[in-house]
Amino acid sequence: MHKGLVRLALVVALVACGCGFALGQTPAAGDEAQIRAAIASQVEAWNRADIPAFMSSYEDSPETTFVGATTVQKGFQAIVERYKRNYAGKEQMGTLSFTDLDVRLLPGSSGAVEFAVVTGHFHLERTAKGEAKKDDGIFSLVWRKGKGGWKIVLDHTS
Amino acid sequence: MHKGLVRLALVVALVACGCGFALGQTPAAGDEAQIRAAIASQVEAWNRADIPAFMSSYEDSPETTFVGATTVQKGFQAIVERYKRNYAGKEQMGTLSFTDLDVRLLPGSSGAVEFAVVTGHFHLERTAKGEAKKDDGIFSLVWRKGKGGWKIVLDHTS
Repeated sequence: MHKGLVRLALVVALVACGCGFALGQTPAAGDEAQIRAAIASQVEAWNRADIPAFMSSYEDSPETTFVGATTVQKGFQAIVERYKRNYAGKEQMGTLSFTDLDVRLLPGSSGAVEFAVVTGHFHLERTAKGEAKKDDGIFSLVWRKGKGGWKIVLDHTS
Repeated sequence: MHKGLVRLALVVALVACGCGFALGQTPAAGDEAQIRAAIASQVEAWNRADIPAFMSSYEDSPETTFVGATTVQKGFQAIVERYKRNYAGKEQMGTLSFTDLDVRLLPGSSGAVEFAVVTGHFHLERTAKGEAKKDDGIFSLVWRKGKGGWKIVLDHTS
């Protein structure tokens, strides 16, 4: 019985230690790593032509803004429709890659980090073009950390 | 003597009242109004070919970022030099105007507003062009409220 209790205590201790380690991983990953992971997920989603998954990194708000070559588009749903219209199907979406990714965390006056900007270049490797003609360009993204994690509130792609 | 004190008290009360009113105007102006005032000052500075005054609305930091048509430039001083190189003198700077200005305040989780994004179109009316060829374009600006007021931390102009 005594040995059994010791064994149980050891198991509890190991599990607790494991949980601590697992819980520790999320803050250890840090804000920049979380944003980079969200961007990597977006690239994967794009490359399997999954616009809803790609869009899950944008804040689902009527205020979410996309600045294109000549126009400003407001609203999550309008941006979804714009992507669907401009990249109609897998061939027009092609294979997306990002280079020169720079993640800059923007602390507020309290030191808390709830905003970040990301800049980079995009390249599309594809066999067909629709409404969107550019295969290469530059972008800046504004991210906000909310209850659902880091989300894009403004995307300027040119 | 008594009348003198009453008169003095009245003067003090009037001055205090006046100060309160004057002090009250700044918060009453609000964050959006402060940003719009900073932008109006930038336009005035540009139109008298005063690049240092124009740049005073940018955060003086090596992290301040300018995203142009194809390149990302980092650093307040590098951005000043870029403007001086691309718009060499009053004729190349011309008369700047902004349209479709949209100011979006971005509250953090506490409700405090320390970040904002601004989008709009620019137009230059001018008689000469230097390195910078475009007279019309679209821009997005990220602003942060610091000790010196609202300042631009990222400018993407395309």
